[in-house]
Formats: sequence, C-alpha cells, structure tokens
Amino acid sequence: MSPAETPEVPQAPDVASRRAESGFGLVTVVGTGLIGASVGLALRAAGVPVALEDPSPTAVTLAADLGAGRLARPDDRPDVVVVAAPPDVTARVVGDALRRHPGATVTDVASVKRAVEAEVVAAADDPARYVGSHPMAGRERSGAIAARSDLFAGRPWVVVAHEASDPGRVAQVERLAALTGAAVARMASAEHDAAVAAVSHVPQVAASLVAARLRDLPADSVALAGQGLRDVTRIAASDPALWTQILVGNASAVRTVLADLAADLGEVVAALADVGDDPDAPAPGARRVLASAIAHGNAGHARIPGKHGAGPTTYGTVTVLMPDRPGHLALLFDHVGAAGVNVEDVRIEHEVGRAVGVVEIAVLPAAVDPLRAALRAQGWTVRD
Amino acid sequence: MSPAETPEVPQAPDVASRRAESGFGLVTVVGTGLIGASVGLALRAAGVPVALEDPSPTAVTLAADLGAGRLARPDDRPDVVVVAAPPDVTARVVGDALRRHPGATVTDVASVKRAVEAEVVAAADDPARYVGSHPMAGRERSGAIAARSDLFAGRPWVVVAHEASDPGRVAQVERLAALTGAAVARMASAEHDAAVAAVSHVPQVAASLVAARLRDLPADSVALAGQGLRDVTRIAASDPALWTQILVGNASAVRTVLADLAADLGEVVAALADVGDDPDAPAPGARRVLASAIAHGNAGHARIPGKHGAGPTTYGTVTVLMPDRPGHLALLFDHVGAAGVNVEDVRIEHEVGRAVGVVEIAVLPAAVDPLRAALRAQGWTVRD
Repeated sequence: MSPAETPEVPQAPDVASRRAESGFGLVTVVGTGLIGASVGLALRAAGVPVALEDPSPTAVTLAADLGAGRLARPDDRPDVVVVAAPPDVTARVVGDALRRHPGATVTDVASVKRAVEAEVVAAADDPARYVGSHPMAGRERSGAIAARSDLFAGRPWVVVAHEASDPGRVAQVERLAALTGAAVARMASAEHDAAVAAVSHVPQVAASLVAARLRDLPADSVALAGQGLRDVTRIAASDPALWTQILVGNASAVRTVLADLAADLGEVVAALADVGDDPDAPAPGARRVLASAIAHGNAGHARIPGKHGAGPTTYGTVTVLMPDRPGHLALLFDHVGAAGVNVEDVRIEHEVGRAVGVVEIAVLPAAVDPLRAALRAQGWTVRD
Repeated sequence: MSPAETPEVPQAPDVASRRAESGFGLVTVVGTGLIGASVGLALRAAGVPVALEDPSPTAVTLAADLGAGRLARPDDRPDVVVVAAPPDVTARVVGDALRRHPGATVTDVASVKRAVEAEVVAAADDPARYVGSHPMAGRERSGAIAARSDLFAGRPWVVVAHEASDPGRVAQVERLAALTGAAVARMASAEHDAAVAAVSHVPQVAASLVAARLRDLPADSVALAGQGLRDVTRIAASDPALWTQILVGNASAVRTVLADLAADLGEVVAALADVGDDPDAPAPGARRVLASAIAHGNAGHARIPGKHGAGPTTYGTVTVLMPDRPGHLALLFDHVGAAGVNVEDVRIEHEVGRAVGVVEIAVLPAAVDPLRAALRAQGWTVRD
C-alpha cells in the first residue's frame, strides 16, 4: 500500500468540478502575506480566478510567482475583494476597496472583528457590501513564501455579518470560505471577539505569564519541569510583536476575561494566605476556595471539543516503554496497525537522564485492552 | 527485528548484580498507596528486601500480593524506613518511625518538604536520622493496584537534607533513590518548595483558571478552540481533592509565585484598559507592557530543559497530511524509520470537521529536509 494510492490523502482538489460550481468570476486579494497568499492559492486550487494587490511590488510579484493569482489590473471588476492587510490598517483598506469596486462584496481576515466593523460601518457609504470574516489558521512563519493552499483545510472560518450586511453577500463570503476547505461558522462581531479572547488570547497571556516566572528560577529548579509545565507554556514561545497587535486589537474583550481570571486568582492567593504557616489548620473556607478553583477548571476543560469538531471524547491510553532510536516507533505503529486499532493521539514523554521514551497512544476505550494484549504479544513493555 | 531482542528496551533489571551492590539489608515502606507500593516494587526489582506497613490491612495485603514486599514484623530492623503517607500526616508518621526504629534512616516522599521538615526537626529526639525526599512521579490512577516498578525510571527524585541530617544517611537515601532508576537531585527544603511551586503548582492553578473561563462560554464559541487552548488546559482535568492538599501544603511558596504572577497580570489588564476603544491610538506604554509580557514569557520558556535532561533543544518540524485510519500512521513511521531519522516528538493535530489528520514530527534540524524529501518520494503530502 502506498499513500499515493489512497484517495483520502489530501490532494489538489478536482479543479474542473470546483470551477463549475465555484460561481466566482474574479476575487481580488489585497495584501499578499501568509494569509492573503494562502487565500489566493486555495481559491486558485478551487478554480477561482484571483487578482493580487499589495503595497509592496516585491511581495505581490512573489505571490503571483508562487501561483496565488495574477497581478491586479485597473479595469478589474471583482465579485469579492478579500482584504488581508495588517489588523491596524484593515478598516481603512476595506473602505478603500468599497469605494474602488462599487459592485463588489468586500470581506477581511483580521483576527479581531468589532473594531474593524465599527470603523467600516461608520465611514462607508455602502456598508451593506461589507461582511467581516476570520479564518482561524496561521503558522509560525510569515510572508507569501510560507503560504499554502491547504492552510484553511478543516480550520474554523468565522463569517461575521453586521446588522446592515446584505444577506446575499453574507452567503457569498460563506461560499468563498467553504471553497478553501474551511469549516464555516457564523457569529456577530462581539461574540467572535469574546470567543477568541477566551479560547486564544487569554490562554496566550496565561502561558506567557507562567513561563515568565521561570526567568529567575535557579537552573536546578527549572530542571524539575515535567510534561505539565511543557504543555502549559508551549505557546509562550510566540512572537511578541504579533501578539501585541492582537491584544491591542481585542483589548476590551481580552480585558473582560482577564479581569474575571484575575478576580479568581485573587481569591486563590487570599485562600493561600489564609492557610498561613500551619497546613494542618487552614482558615475555614480556604480549602473550599482552592478545591472550587480546580473543580471549575475541570468543568471548563470538559467543554473543549475533541477531534473532528465532535463533542469531547474520552480516550483510553496505552503506554509503551521503548528505546529512543530510529525505527522503533515505526515498528511500534506497525504492530498497532496490525492490531486494527486507530490511533487518536500520540504523546512521547521526555524522560530525564536516559535514552528511553514513553509513548502514550490514545485510542477508543474499547480498544485499550486488545491493543495492550497485542503489543505485549509482540514483546513490547506495556504499562498497565 | 523484534523489540524483545533489543537490550535497550526496558526489562526487569538484572536482579543478581543489583542485589550485590544494593547494600540494603531491609527497607520498610510505611504506606502502600501508589507511591509506596511502587517504591516497594522498584526496590524488590533491584534485589532489596522490603517490608510493608499500612494502617489498612487490605491495602498492605494487596501490595504484598502484588510483589511490593512482605508484611512487616515487630522484630524488623530496617536500614531505611520510607514514609509514603498522605502529606498531612507525613511528619507524624516520620516521628513515629524514628522512635520505633532507633537505628534506621527515615525518609518520606511527600511532594512538599518545608512543613514536614520543620515539624519533624522540632519534635524528634534524633532528627539527624531524618532525610526528606520527593520522587517526582505519579499517574492518574491511585492505590497499590496502579503501582509499577518503573514509576520512577528517569524521573527526578529530589533528596532534601536538613541542616542536622547525617551526611552518611543522606548518601544512603540517594543510593536508595538511584536504585529505583530515578535521576537523583539534592536541594534544600525551601528551594525545593519554591521550585515545585513554579514548575508544577502555579502552572496547575493557571491552567485551571483559564479552563474555568470556558464554563459560561456559548458552545459555538468553545468550538473555536485550537491546539493552543488544549495544551494550556490539559492538566485542568486534575483531581480537586489531591490538588487542594498539595496547594495547602505548599501555600507559602505557591502564594509567593502567584502573587508575582498576579502583579504581572494586573499590569496587563491595566495596559489593556489604557488601550481603550481606539486600538489605533493606545496610551503611551500600553504596547510596551503587552510586548514585555510576551517577551518575558519567551525568555522563561527558553529555560525549560529538553529531552533527556539536556539543555533546551530546538527541533525542526515535518508536517504530513494523512487520512485518519488504522495502519496509515504505521506506514508513515515505517517510512520515517527507513529514512534513518529519529523522531523526537510527535503531535497529531485535530482538524475540525473532517477525517484527516495533520501529523507533526519533531526531528533534529539537520534531519528536516532529508526527511521531507524521503517522505515525498514515498507519496506523502508534506507541508513546506
């Protein structure tokens, strides 16, 4: 079996069939960084003609050379203009696009929606043609050179209509988002901004603040770090410039959630102070506050959806000890596959001080016992 | 090749050779829950005679049946007593062990050290025989039934001598910890408690507080959750009763770190308030505060050690799109192994709304390009 023979492996989409149903004569993308160029590549792959604009001639030529579309021409009459400019100039560029293309639907891809919407609606003569949107995709690298046609595949793309948005144009933006392979959702701008504050911006701030506490810790102490700390702080490696712009752009919604979090944190700190120096006799209520903080975390965590957008699923874990060398992981998954078990997730634990890996394989609960037995039969060391 | 033929696959240790060098006549374990029973199993595997005590006859019999040691006898004269009682009774049980076994070294395994040490030193006639310790291992399940002989393999085991601890007895506890396969470290109790506050207890509180903010979010909003939120909140699923005891036991050190974190958070909230409703013209200094918060997180994150206790290593990532079905992961790792590349870490991203997996394979930077080429040659869809 070769993966190339397997139709489910993502391939370039069927261009002919998508062109027939795309229904877009021309889409103009303004701003050819990572997101704009990826939109161009995705739409081109779906058979949509794409024109490209960018203040930088170098950037727009690179994006065109990469296949994201052709250079825009003064007589272009796009059906849709996608503004993929930096957040702090998005509203101005949207307004400009509405004026320059009087028939076009104009959307944008900024990660914060309320401020852009307010500025566009206040300034535009014809705001009905504006429909905001936010494709929730990105990567560590930036610029057109990092763009790819599948950047949005399977990712949420939130379409954010305002009160005066024309319903037909909203549907048009939703069709465009769907053509990129994204999972289209619809939200009001305030709801969107509150959502990304809670699920993205506040977790970023928390991870950064926890990681910052490690700066002055002795090296011997940092060496006690385990997988929990690694997970909590992974995104603390994010870019300060980018995140400053995001936090500034969504300041109000982020502040609301962070203020609630700060109040909860204040209660925990006060409860710890109440414990005092005698852990055997904490002040009444201190234990209750601490237990509630952890229990509320349980409840919130349980709401996070699992794989494939389905509700949260609890998987069972099969844990295997293995030497940390080329080939053994392949052998392991060979045996897992031979057992007919689908792997839902994999985690390799990093053990300190020895070249042994601990591989945790998440599978459906019913598959746990059969998989353990099958792997043991193959000679693997499997933990109970 | 079968994994059973590979000597590096962890096996039952060579009992004979370890017995010869163990140098322990008898070790008594008091408390046969997960940690105590695992200590017994690990020491038995190293050829050390082990006696078991527990207030619960059922628990101690189960641990003995599982092979963690024999039941303790009134005339036992252990070299070392390991107290593995709940944190809130540890000091009392240590004092009792010092009295009952006048020649023995007594250690404990509580996850918080300063309070236990203070209470033992204040109460004991002969505190020189007490040496605290903390094996940093655990699992989701509790009780002797979940115990295993390799629980401590490769994990840090911190030995915490106090000012009056006898140096020979400190070395004895270090030898005992090393026999379980742990990576032995030495710290003072205050240093230990401050370290675990920063690398374990504070991350737990932060994860729980971030997750708690999701409780009242609309389901559509929670559905926008990405991998970042999943990582930050994974440990928010932890047990409230256990964590209440841990936080109470280390209240002072946790409060110190959390208070610093709360101050940083207060600055971020204030900066967001300064931004006001016009993201284009934030108050002077607001952007600097936000950028510093993220940059300080970068600096702290960079200090976390990588795999195998080495300094932090930056790995390259090879990203592969694949169908989410049995066998394909095995095929992928088969091809990775054939390319002679060692896998440092694996992450399977959960894409919303479609049965396609994105597999991120972390490898040494020099292996990234060769691996990409090798996988493409096999027909895989590899992202740049």
